Amino acid sequence: MEITSIIGNIAATLTTMSFLPQAVKTIKSKDTGSLSFPMYLMFVMGVLLWLIYGTLNRQMPIIIGNLVTLLLAGIILMFMLRDQLRKKRNQDSGSRI
Amino acid sequence: MEITSIIGNIAATLTTMSFLPQAVKTIKSKDTGSLSFPMYLMFVMGVLLWLIYGTLNRQMPIIIGNLVTLLLAGIILMFMLRDQLRKKRNQDSGSRI
Repeated sequence: MEITSIIGNIAATLTTMSFLPQAVKTIKSKDTGSLSFPMYLMFVMGVLLWLIYGTLNRQMPIIIGNLVTLLLAGIILMFMLRDQLRKKRNQDSGSRI
Repeated sequence: MEITSIIGNIAATLTTMSFLPQAVKTIKSKDTGSLSFPMYLMFVMGVLLWLIYGTLNRQMPIIIGNLVTLLLAGIILMFMLRDQLRKKRNQDSGSRI
């Protein structure tokens, strides 16, 4: 394998798998306080489009890489959505008092 | 432009720019409590390798996209490194008492 291909493969593995420790930390701590909601919303939408792009071009590495990232970033986004809903519910019940 | 190219361009813009709101939030709040240090370490290393890959292959979109991501994710990693060092220093001074 060429040196550039090896570099590209390591790069793809690192950027894809980097979301694993964040997902594990978020699942364990259930704390999303310093995570940015717009970041995960934009990121998950972007990864979803990469998945469509890979499917239309039948590029398996793009499909697999983005499926893994979508799963991991999607879990983090779900936790953030839950926190956002909880915050909104608390605000609503607070304003009724 | 073909529909797949348009989807690819929107995908790249979204995943690249998603780190902007996280960097802004981290700079403003200086809170990195729920961010994963291994995630940002792996991610920044991966983006650095993508930059080398793009440079070796002379692919300008890969170079520019990863330069922007490196800057944004690098800022977040710097804040986390500062917090890690501060925590270590506090532990050291605590163990000396």
